[in-house]
Amino acid sequence: MLTIYGDLQSGNCYKVKLLLSLLSIEHDWRHIDVVKQETKTPEFLTLNPNGQIPAAVLEDGRVLCESNAILGYFAEGTDFLPVDRYGKAKVYEWLFFEQYSHEPYIAVARFINKYLGLPAERKAEYAAKQAGGHKALAVMEQALSTQPWLTGKRLTIADIALYAYTHVAHEGGFELADYPNIMQWCQRVAAQPNYTKMA
Amino acid sequence: MLTIYGDLQSGNCYKVKLLLSLLSIEHDWRHIDVVKQETKTPEFLTLNPNGQIPAAVLEDGRVLCESNAILGYFAEGTDFLPVDRYGKAKVYEWLFFEQYSHEPYIAVARFINKYLGLPAERKAEYAAKQAGGHKALAVMEQALSTQPWLTGKRLTIADIALYAYTHVAHEGGFELADYPNIMQWCQRVAAQPNYTKMA
Repeated sequence: MLTIYGDLQSGNCYKVKLLLSLLSIEHDWRHIDVVKQETKTPEFLTLNPNGQIPAAVLEDGRVLCESNAILGYFAEGTDFLPVDRYGKAKVYEWLFFEQYSHEPYIAVARFINKYLGLPAERKAEYAAKQAGGHKALAVMEQALSTQPWLTGKRLTIADIALYAYTHVAHEGGFELADYPNIMQWCQRVAAQPNYTKMA
Repeated sequence: MLTIYGDLQSGNCYKVKLLLSLLSIEHDWRHIDVVKQETKTPEFLTLNPNGQIPAAVLEDGRVLCESNAILGYFAEGTDFLPVDRYGKAKVYEWLFFEQYSHEPYIAVARFINKYLGLPAERKAEYAAKQAGGHKALAVMEQALSTQPWLTGKRLTIADIALYAYTHVAHEGGFELADYPNIMQWCQRVAAQPNYTKMA
């Protein structure tokens, strides 16, 4: 059976869980604790030499890492990824935006606050993440002001990927009240059939 | 005609130039100067609300941003991106690795050193980038120890994306002498027909 190694409190892992749930794909979930350094064991490093979760092991034993690459793999051939070349590239545009301009601010601020309890020695870093996070949210808010989903009229893995950390952004100090389009979009994602909550 | 907005000293822009060159795709290149804040003008922000280069404007006027999404768009249907679902996902795995685990260390260290002249107030940040950069290079070195290209026997956009900042990593303080497989791989990329140098 398909096996996913991850932590359901991590947005990068939860986004994979959410897509598999929306697609009703059965899988075995193995919990990996990042804070306990379980991504740095020799066993885990054979799965992912980069020492990060999530990691997917397909039924035939082949491994796939990087959350958004995993989303792309399972979305291919489904309604969650367009077939046309430009439509698909626009979805990937958002996926790269998520990993470069969104996650490093919102997810890291959330990690420092929620997982580590905002220790004094990381307060400056936490504060420094706020501007970048709000910049990413502003880009999303603008896109969602004219269309229901990030790439247009259809929910895609762009929405699933961005939803993961955005809907818990308040845990990193980002209040969504100033982003009404994002708040409505979050409600639309949560209303999908087979939606599953974050841990 | 296809128009690319970018700076050929930027690896994110150069990787697009390199793929277009390898594919012999004609295009118009418009220089954008990041240090002069030309990515923050109202005109540029209509192209990319996230204010980053490169940005591609296709012949029909449609816009595509995020360097690796642009690579995926032009590689689709060519030898640089596998057709099978798993092979394609493994290429994207490397593309996300590049934007999350490689570029934020190697490209930023290079920017601080080469573009800004390593000012005193950014020396601590520059030093902090070294460990992450070497970790990314070690992951690449391991992958290239058993195969000529990052995903196996064929050069793909995974190699093109990673090559961009890796082959100039010394400009960010990363000496490649300790990574013999990476050095040979760089030579293989540079030996490709229609290869074009970075500015």
